[in-house]
Amino acid sequence: MKGEGKQAIYPGTFDPVTNGHMDIVQRAASLFDSVVVAVTNNPGKQPLFLVEERVAMIQEELSGLDNATVESFDGLLMDYAERREAAVIVRGLRAITDFEFEFQMALVNRKLSNDIVTVFLMPNEKYTYLNSTIVKEVAKFDGDVSSFVSPYVQEQLSLKYRDA
Amino acid sequence: MKGEGKQAIYPGTFDPVTNGHMDIVQRAASLFDSVVVAVTNNPGKQPLFLVEERVAMIQEELSGLDNATVESFDGLLMDYAERREAAVIVRGLRAITDFEFEFQMALVNRKLSNDIVTVFLMPNEKYTYLNSTIVKEVAKFDGDVSSFVSPYVQEQLSLKYRDA
Amino acid sequence: MKGEGKQAIYPGTFDPVTNGHMDIVQRAASLFDSVVVAVTNNPGKQPLFLVEERVAMIQEELSGLDNATVESFDGLLMDYAERREAAVIVRGLRAITDFEFEFQMALVNRKLSNDIVTVFLMPNEKYTYLNSTIVKEVAKFDGDVSSFVSPYVQEQLSLKYRDA
Amino acid sequence: MKGEGKQAIYPGTFDPVTNGHMDIVQRAASLFDSVVVAVTNNPGKQPLFLVEERVAMIQEELSGLDNATVESFDGLLMDYAERREAAVIVRGLRAITDFEFEFQMALVNRKLSNDIVTVFLMPNEKYTYLNSTIVKEVAKFDGDVSSFVSPYVQEQLSLKYRDA
Amino acid sequence: MKGEGKQAIYPGTFDPVTNGHMDIVQRAASLFDSVVVAVTNNPGKQPLFLVEERVAMIQEELSGLDNATVESFDGLLMDYAERREAAVIVRGLRAITDFEFEFQMALVNRKLSNDIVTVFLMPNEKYTYLNSTIVKEVAKFDGDVSSFVSPYVQEQLSLKYRDA
Amino acid sequence: MKGEGKQAIYPGTFDPVTNGHMDIVQRAASLFDSVVVAVTNNPGKQPLFLVEERVAMIQEELSGLDNATVESFDGLLMDYAERREAAVIVRGLRAITDFEFEFQMALVNRKLSNDIVTVFLMPNEKYTYLNSTIVKEVAKFDGDVSSFVSPYVQEQLSLKYRDA
Repeated sequence: MKGEGKQAIYPGTFDPVTNGHMDIVQRAASLFDSVVVAVTNNPGKQPLFLVEERVAMIQEELSGLDNATVESFDGLLMDYAERREAAVIVRGLRAITDFEFEFQMALVNRKLSNDIVTVFLMPNEKYTYLNSTIVKEVAKFDGDVSSFVSPYVQEQLSLKYRDA
Repeated sequence: MKGEGKQAIYPGTFDPVTNGHMDIVQRAASLFDSVVVAVTNNPGKQPLFLVEERVAMIQEELSGLDNATVESFDGLLMDYAERREAAVIVRGLRAITDFEFEFQMALVNRKLSNDIVTVFLMPNEKYTYLNSTIVKEVAKFDGDVSSFVSPYVQEQLSLKYRDA
Repeated sequence: MKGEGKQAIYPGTFDPVTNGHMDIVQRAASLFDSVVVAVTNNPGKQPLFLVEERVAMIQEELSGLDNATVESFDGLLMDYAERREAAVIVRGLRAITDFEFEFQMALVNRKLSNDIVTVFLMPNEKYTYLNSTIVKEVAKFDGDVSSFVSPYVQEQLSLKYRDA
Repeated sequence: MKGEGKQAIYPGTFDPVTNGHMDIVQRAASLFDSVVVAVTNNPGKQPLFLVEERVAMIQEELSGLDNATVESFDGLLMDYAERREAAVIVRGLRAITDFEFEFQMALVNRKLSNDIVTVFLMPNEKYTYLNSTIVKEVAKFDGDVSSFVSPYVQEQLSLKYRDA
Repeated sequence: MKGEGKQAIYPGTFDPVTNGHMDIVQRAASLFDSVVVAVTNNPGKQPLFLVEERVAMIQEELSGLDNATVESFDGLLMDYAERREAAVIVRGLRAITDFEFEFQMALVNRKLSNDIVTVFLMPNEKYTYLNSTIVKEVAKFDGDVSSFVSPYVQEQLSLKYRDA
Repeated sequence: MKGEGKQAIYPGTFDPVTNGHMDIVQRAASLFDSVVVAVTNNPGKQPLFLVEERVAMIQEELSGLDNATVESFDGLLMDYAERREAAVIVRGLRAITDFEFEFQMALVNRKLSNDIVTVFLMPNEKYTYLNSTIVKEVAKFDGDVSSFVSPYVQEQLSLKYRDA
């Protein structure tokens, strides 16, 4: 229904959150009434950071945005989105391989819940080729990741790799 | 500002409007407070239909959607969008070649007007490979275009090619 | 030699078989004298279903097609195809990433056995973004996969995940 | 119906026919009972060679293949294919941009005539990046096109550009 | 032969030269002993600027680079490169569609002259989606192109469109 | 600085080195004063060959090239390149998926060390679809890999799989 508040969900693994992710959160927050950054638990994929750590890092980044929050979820995205009464799923699109995977997910999600619309946003071109995997690869060998993540995330990365 | 009405513009040539375009209009209309289908005049490209004819066909299709309207515009999209005080540009994404062209336009448009966000929607997979050029190609040789366009557009196409 | 019966092989992992796979089998069966759906054993990849289970599910689906059969094979596809005296390898093409992998395989296979032609078929656009991995992902969280696989496969998926 | 002769059509502009096209014709002729190379008339696109010249060049190339012929056609491919009672449309796939255009055509053609199957073949990797446009570009400036076209086509190209 | 000076050619239409082109020229000039920016005459394509104007604009931009020059050429690139005794052709790669076209050209050029190596450089990500066509499109409607081209080129564009 | 010797690094896993890799090494050696083939240690990825074995196989292949050497390295490529005072990183580009990964790496590497330029070379079209993974897949089942790797590497592969 038009005129009502639209809630958007921005799902992802965020292991860890990058400046590219935050660029998408800001765009989404300017478009919709509220945005929930939804961190998937996926223990099977062996993320570097625990889901609680990933949520905490995003919490830190959201301080200036009053209509964006963060939480974690388990199970199917569309079940979670329905429980949350979200109208929109937000995804960032950077590259061709993203494009194919994202389309596949969006089509399956549409089959599972036809009322929720997937919306694609394009990050600033500075972040076109940025992802969490490459950030971890660089951080692991003590490379400089200051143009890819916030100072707080940078610190968490070096703590994590110092422990390792 | 959040809470306010968001106006979206869905620009294109629409020569003629297809079921794939209307699928995007409907999704956009469910997401934003109002949607303007904005038909580019581009006389240089020698469209099959006059801009007035293209606007009239879309008008016909919009009858069931109370928050969507149609009009034509000249000049740069971003100048038009600013005059219209739009917050969002809506574009459909179907294929890889779309993807590259659309990203290019979105990046240039962002440089021209940073406050207007380009949002990409994905049409129903039935329309993944549909575009106006192929519809005209089929209609020109009297092929059946009934699964690609509305009956009204189908009629306009056959009138146009009968005249030719 | 022309005029003779042409045998086609449609190889894959089929973990499990989807409606998209069956769409390709049907097209292939209309084109060639006989089609063998050839299930690769690949124990290294840890499939969800045993090779016998995958063969049995396809057997179930083939009931209406009198010139299509199913069997499993080990080792190199081209060695198997030569033993089987097949003239054609059939592959479905859905997306760009498929395209690159399939071309690579086809070129290598051509080097290994120049007489066997790889033929690409395009599934119905409904199945453009469907694959076995996404079906398992949805089934695992008890999502509805009824538009992606047959009722029989759906049942096998829920039995498998109930056991897990 | 299985066991019967399958007729395939290989449509195109062939302005002029290249070694890559002939590679596809040979593969198709090994798979199907007969292959018709079908040259589209398309006077709107201002081809370099008249449709009769394009047919004559292909005629020359087909001398060794006893189940392949050439002819021209007007209008919609699928209408022509139905008149010809063809079971198969053959297309060569080389690159990503081909891929998208070909899928679009195949999907539209399937809508127009559901019984005719489009089959994609991959040319030898030597011809991956070869097309008629680039051959003409090189021939126009008197470059060496001997690895791209037959000696006969090479001669026709130099006659054409000498006249120009 | 190693140790000798390597001359590189950077060919293109440059209608007009953009900041993305200059980014590639600078990278090439840091790698090779000398770089010639080679402007193709191609009168058939109806460029906005005369070849002399395009050369003059690049001349202006090259002032700080002491091992780079500009000139125009006619005919086949590889004939020109051989006359110039160049060892290297430099091309910028930005997007997928570039990629396919560039590979095609590089393979044909290799067939025509096997000793000259085509080298691809990647512009700064700021220029990923920039090209001359989009710059002209924006300039034509009096949009701001200051982040895409130099002040001098910007002036030439507005003179050109004022005259039109 | 121009005129000086330029050192290039060609990094990779080379598990094992293929004819496609050697094609790139030869092109790079004709362009730059010296080329170091740099084998990444990456024990995490469980390569088939030990890093010493991979270096030894490349050593064997380099016998005819007097300005190319091989060595292994640990850690970040850009740290290694700086220690080596290399001016250039060489990468082969074959396919779309390469393209995206390579661009990502090149952009990150540029952020880490702005003075080192990444240069992309295109292998002979014979090697467009060749990679080490497919070579191992074929060799594992005792298929013929003689057109993909040198006789020496072929022997090492069969020793490795005989032991397994």
